[in-house]
Amino acid sequence: MGNIIIGQSGGPTAAINASLAGAYCEGVKYPDTKVYGMIGGIKGLLDGKYIDLSEYLKTEKDIEILKQTPSSALGSCRYKLPDMAEDKAVYEKLFDLFAELDIKHFIYIGGNDSMDTVAKLSAYAKEINSDISFMGVPKTVDNDLAVTDHTPGFGSAAKYIATTVKEIICDSSVYDIKSITVIEIMGRNAGWLTAASALAKGEDCCGVDMIYLPERSFDLEKCVQKTKELLEKKNTVVIAVSEALRDKNGDYVANSGSVHAELDAFGHKIMSGMGQFLAKHLGKSLGVKARGIEINTPQRCAAHLLSKQDIDESFDAGAMAVAASKNNRTAEMAVIIRESDNPYSYRIETADIECCANLEKTIPQEWIINDGTYVSDEFIKYCRPLIYGEVTPILKDGLPIHMKLK
Amino acid sequence: MGNIIIGQSGGPTAAINASLAGAYCEGVKYPDTKVYGMIGGIKGLLDGKYIDLSEYLKTEKDIEILKQTPSSALGSCRYKLPDMAEDKAVYEKLFDLFAELDIKHFIYIGGNDSMDTVAKLSAYAKEINSDISFMGVPKTVDNDLAVTDHTPGFGSAAKYIATTVKEIICDSSVYDIKSITVIEIMGRNAGWLTAASALAKGEDCCGVDMIYLPERSFDLEKCVQKTKELLEKKNTVVIAVSEALRDKNGDYVANSGSVHAELDAFGHKIMSGMGQFLAKHLGKSLGVKARGIEINTPQRCAAHLLSKQDIDESFDAGAMAVAASKNNRTAEMAVIIRESDNPYSYRIETADIECCANLEKTIPQEWIINDGTYVSDEFIKYCRPLIYGEVTPILKDGLPIHMKLK
Repeated sequence: MGNIIIGQSGGPTAAINASLAGAYCEGVKYPDTKVYGMIGGIKGLLDGKYIDLSEYLKTEKDIEILKQTPSSALGSCRYKLPDMAEDKAVYEKLFDLFAELDIKHFIYIGGNDSMDTVAKLSAYAKEINSDISFMGVPKTVDNDLAVTDHTPGFGSAAKYIATTVKEIICDSSVYDIKSITVIEIMGRNAGWLTAASALAKGEDCCGVDMIYLPERSFDLEKCVQKTKELLEKKNTVVIAVSEALRDKNGDYVANSGSVHAELDAFGHKIMSGMGQFLAKHLGKSLGVKARGIEINTPQRCAAHLLSKQDIDESFDAGAMAVAASKNNRTAEMAVIIRESDNPYSYRIETADIECCANLEKTIPQEWIINDGTYVSDEFIKYCRPLIYGEVTPILKDGLPIHMKLK
Repeated sequence: MGNIIIGQSGGPTAAINASLAGAYCEGVKYPDTKVYGMIGGIKGLLDGKYIDLSEYLKTEKDIEILKQTPSSALGSCRYKLPDMAEDKAVYEKLFDLFAELDIKHFIYIGGNDSMDTVAKLSAYAKEINSDISFMGVPKTVDNDLAVTDHTPGFGSAAKYIATTVKEIICDSSVYDIKSITVIEIMGRNAGWLTAASALAKGEDCCGVDMIYLPERSFDLEKCVQKTKELLEKKNTVVIAVSEALRDKNGDYVANSGSVHAELDAFGHKIMSGMGQFLAKHLGKSLGVKARGIEINTPQRCAAHLLSKQDIDESFDAGAMAVAASKNNRTAEMAVIIRESDNPYSYRIETADIECCANLEKTIPQEWIINDGTYVSDEFIKYCRPLIYGEVTPILKDGLPIHMKLK
């Protein structure tokens, strides 16, 4: 049947290791099958870095700890494969290594860019008539992958954000004075995580007052006006903003006046500071105490507060990728199909990787309401089931234990 | 016996409501005793804002939810009582209200500044021969109050910080590239919270590489040199810094070149930006990818990740203040006395408020090691027991429930 190699790529999430656990647990079910892990994604593999996962994952408790370990336990990379027309050497090196380790199943857990890697490798395999299967497992807190109803990793990040926003609202409203709190949440082009702040609202919480998403252009003066109107009715205004809002010309708002913007390896602009920028601007314009809070890295690595729903699905998606690969599928990605909202149910299928790679799924415009300052009940109905359920952390000395694979 | 009124003051913590719960539960044990809550601390009380807590806290579940609610459920204030020699009117107004509500026990949960309020009110009571008792319950994530071994609220904040730092270290080390992460933690003059980042280190975590505390002056050039040396030996350098480090002249490092610094109502300078400042400086000086992460508000309001030890002690401290007050004590503060480290045990006593007010307890110099870049095992021995134990959150719709009292 051939061996399996699993890699993790792109930005880490709190659930990416649950997919690794799922793929591993499915893989070891097959007789005479070794399950390897790439250290540092495909870039590490090109440097000959890999491990035999069975040397690290020996007990059920090990699997449980792996599921609760944040970020890529195998390490990750941001490495874009060259087009095979331009540079075949990289492909030849990889396939030599696959032959050496008798690898027939290549499982890559990652976001859009990682699915691009799976697509390229499977295209190369087809060209050289290789029988190696290449499968993708989606992973991104940003929830911006096409075809899948949502992405593994999103539910846990959404739960962390909604919980933290709810706590920050408590913190914001203790003093009997006018104040503005701007909470900056991840999401460059897709506002799913920022929208998750809407989940905070409930019987015991008035929720955030406004939500600004990258799906709509941002009008600074309108925001000042709306904030002013809110402050006439209430003491505490809390606003959730995506990290990279743009004005009607497409320019980053927090960057206005500046011509510098860093680029990552894929040419994406690296942005931050929207929360601080808007807090300062609102505070100055309205003469009110204002603070910007960037939820920052913890929103993608807070494994102490996982959504059980997300972890179960992430595990299942990893397992399904291996099962489908063993069933002779290739060039596909595990996708989550929502079967019903209430009670929520889902199944995992696989879909053509070409439909998934390099596409960004944003929030439907009709889910964005109140002149671009809030999200509709349809969003809540969509998002709420994904944050259900708790995973009880396994602790030692008062802190969660993490699995070390490298 | 007379009624009880409880107030919360100063910056919120994740455990301040556990002390309110403890004081309430102790208070209702006494016959014919009403337990009131000030809304918005003493400032709100001066505006006639208070509630009968029994109308809100009816079941054991209500008490449990209150214990898991972050920030001051009664609201808070930053209000400094005038000296009675200067302005008696405020005192007279308050004591009139006490008479009206038949209040004989005034319990104030807060930090140094709140203990100043307790000291002034009890001094005034003595002057006018009032039999009203004034008791303080310590509360501050900063752990900077004198006499008490540690402060209620510190343990939960330390647990959140250590957990989050451990998760950020996982996130920092996924790529096979050189990088610097600077984590900014609260603490203006006392570095207890920043030092708590040392707890992250263990079998499964290499821990932070350096810890910079406000107890020592900060040498930027030395820090660059040490970081450079570390990067020669390892890929990922993670540094924990207090929010307000000062250089050898006593000037704030992150503020260098600037003459502006906001002041709060008590004349404390408001600082922030040390993490970003140092990350930028190190990144530029060493030509390495660097990021600053401010843990920010969640470190004082993350009630989803409480230390059970802290919550139990906070509850007991609130209860003890009421019990002592009912036992005719006044002008005192509940303090935690450590009886042993291993196994950890404690008892609650009360101490003269004058010994506690307006004093700041910092980390002993001998616990700061490695030329001011780390903390000793003595600190770990002191801090570790305070983060033990978990409180399982009570949830609805996937999120923790909070108690609303205002």
